[in-house]
Amino acid sequence: MLTEEDLRRRTAAAVERAKAQNPLAGSITNFVTVDFVANAQLAVGGSAAMVYLPDEGEALAAAGESMYINVGTLLPIYEKTVPATMKRLHELKRPWVLDPVAVGIGELRTSLLQKAKDYKPAVIRGNASEIIALARLWNLTDGTEGSHVRGVDSTDTVQASKSAAVALAAYTGGAVAVSGAEDLVTDGIHLARCRGGSPMMERITGCGCSLGGVIAVYAAVTDPFTSAFCGTQAYNLAGKKAAAAATGPASFKGRFIDGLYNLGADDMAVSDFIWEVL
Amino acid sequence: MLTEEDLRRRTAAAVERAKAQNPLAGSITNFVTVDFVANAQLAVGGSAAMVYLPDEGEALAAAGESMYINVGTLLPIYEKTVPATMKRLHELKRPWVLDPVAVGIGELRTSLLQKAKDYKPAVIRGNASEIIALARLWNLTDGTEGSHVRGVDSTDTVQASKSAAVALAAYTGGAVAVSGAEDLVTDGIHLARCRGGSPMMERITGCGCSLGGVIAVYAAVTDPFTSAFCGTQAYNLAGKKAAAAATGPASFKGRFIDGLYNLGADDMAVSDFIWEVL
Amino acid sequence: MLTEEDLRRRTAAAVERAKAQNPLAGSITNFVTVDFVANAQLAVGGSAAMVYLPDEGEALAAAGESMYINVGTLLPIYEKTVPATMKRLHELKRPWVLDPVAVGIGELRTSLLQKAKDYKPAVIRGNASEIIALARLWNLTDGTEGSHVRGVDSTDTVQASKSAAVALAAYTGGAVAVSGAEDLVTDGIHLARCRGGSPMMERITGCGCSLGGVIAVYAAVTDPFTSAFCGTQAYNLAGKKAAAAATGPASFKGRFIDGLYNLGADDMAVSDFIWEVL
Repeated sequence: MLTEEDLRRRTAAAVERAKAQNPLAGSITNFVTVDFVANAQLAVGGSAAMVYLPDEGEALAAAGESMYINVGTLLPIYEKTVPATMKRLHELKRPWVLDPVAVGIGELRTSLLQKAKDYKPAVIRGNASEIIALARLWNLTDGTEGSHVRGVDSTDTVQASKSAAVALAAYTGGAVAVSGAEDLVTDGIHLARCRGGSPMMERITGCGCSLGGVIAVYAAVTDPFTSAFCGTQAYNLAGKKAAAAATGPASFKGRFIDGLYNLGADDMAVSDFIWEVL
Repeated sequence: MLTEEDLRRRTAAAVERAKAQNPLAGSITNFVTVDFVANAQLAVGGSAAMVYLPDEGEALAAAGESMYINVGTLLPIYEKTVPATMKRLHELKRPWVLDPVAVGIGELRTSLLQKAKDYKPAVIRGNASEIIALARLWNLTDGTEGSHVRGVDSTDTVQASKSAAVALAAYTGGAVAVSGAEDLVTDGIHLARCRGGSPMMERITGCGCSLGGVIAVYAAVTDPFTSAFCGTQAYNLAGKKAAAAATGPASFKGRFIDGLYNLGADDMAVSDFIWEVL
Repeated sequence: MLTEEDLRRRTAAAVERAKAQNPLAGSITNFVTVDFVANAQLAVGGSAAMVYLPDEGEALAAAGESMYINVGTLLPIYEKTVPATMKRLHELKRPWVLDPVAVGIGELRTSLLQKAKDYKPAVIRGNASEIIALARLWNLTDGTEGSHVRGVDSTDTVQASKSAAVALAAYTGGAVAVSGAEDLVTDGIHLARCRGGSPMMERITGCGCSLGGVIAVYAAVTDPFTSAFCGTQAYNLAGKKAAAAATGPASFKGRFIDGLYNLGADDMAVSDFIWEVL
């Protein structure tokens, strides 16, 4: 059984290892926020590479230490690229992070997210509505919870997604991170609630996506639950600090990325959260 | 008949409504400036979502309050995506903004822009050369005016595009915004000329595209003419202010986005322009 | 035979001409850093336009003064777009810059880079591993040198790439720029080694890609060797200056782009490098 202190210690170690080892966490990710994803990954010490073709997805799965798959904006070729890459990751036992952006919109998205169930992502990251909808798509909940994805935004509270998050983590054997005003991270056995960040994070595009990319960097150097918590908490700390000095969303974003870069193991070691053993 | 004061009042109201209602203005837009489009839309209070596949375009047309279609960079699938989305928008009577970037380059672009004529965008936004070329493509002018699109840049003056802009607005029953050193906004009956902004806006990529996205946000909460004017004027005000403090294009862009975020109804209520009833 | 002073003079002239002539340097480039490429090109005085379709690539090759082709992220349509564009550039004798990003990953990338050999780019820009791998792919080296591309990163030193760079330049009759902690620029006859920049350039994505785009701007107004050197040196100067005041990667990037914008002929005229006649 993991304790609160174990998690704190592992998180601090993960931050240092990412900087020291510069792990390659490749991505298949959307076109809107791809620059932010890559820059956030580099800021925390990782290496980034993005691909779109099937054989390149397979090659990157093998070349990197982890991977990030975000279905935010799909192209026709993804029908082949995404399953081939997920399959290869699964065979290689490489940890990978799934971001089920806008689950429910379009046939291809639904089909790809259905297939993801077989290839068990180490971490699933999404907003509350996406986590609830994914759990339902995978038949892990009874479907009585509401899920209201509007475009790429959530209209459900993080608290409402708790049982869906726990069910997903229990199924994959990995972890789930639900992002919102309060965040929730669970491995199905333990649960951490984190606060922090800033409402300004909803006034820039890509905080969720780039968090997924950062979790993939940490997933290369630690276990899934720690990586999900570490990324989430790094975003809370950097977001809170950036908001204090920002005069608008662009200055917030700049300070936020600089904050991720300057985040040390010490910051993580004393970070605040609410701990629960399920 | 609309008066100058009416427009001022409507514009101020639109700025407030966008912040209060957070309307979803989805986009099919180019890959170069997609991050800027989304962040500008969020800065003025909107919600952004970008798609590329046919059924996703249709879904987003239905899910959102308005939409932005920019043909800056095309992919093969757009042959299906763009007409399907425009058709759905037209059926749903959703206001949408067309940005005929680089009209004249390539067969697919010409074909898509031809088809757009049937689905009457609420607002057309472009530089002078693009507006002149689109009016000619739609057979709304006699073709004697020169249009010189060079890549994505205009080589015509905004003044030279006046009759093309008026003809386009008269045809669609919506509005046209021509961007340049002086801007021109018309609904075919009224015409506003605005100044402001900064030459620095030509030293960063995406001011035109992101303006189109911002107009789409405003089109969700007000009439086409007001939305076209409101976006144009917001850009002039934020651009002028940002230029005063910038040390180069990157610091200009950051301050510009922050400026859009901080723009209030008061700023719009006293903004300066030249008014003409045609 | 070119002297060190000739190069200094030509470089200073190129910086001024780019600002005065605003040359159009179109691109086929990756989705991760496309915004950075365009903004860097605009910052040094050029005009940018990006395309993905075959007939648009051909049209842009004809419309612009030079072009930039970066194979960082490929789509299926590139199988047609890239060869058609390279062929047209070759026929038109337009200078173009090749960036063989991640050479070796995937079949299409290998096939496109093979074909590039016939269409002789004016400048090839890459990191050491990419330059070594391209020379081997083109059968210009005996293959005994190691090349270790990891994702998009280099694991070879610039010094190790010298003979590959010289062989590539001798074959194309143009120039090669190898980017690293120390940079190397050669036309197969002369060789310049430059220092400067900042380790922070590896903590943001796109310094290499945007340098390729900037070299394409300069290639529109000067000879290949001068353009490769001019871009490389501009990056060293702007990078060094930006690092002095940055508090992290995002503030570094902002200052870096502003620095490119503010770079004058005077800065280039006194810039430092090591000169060698082969």
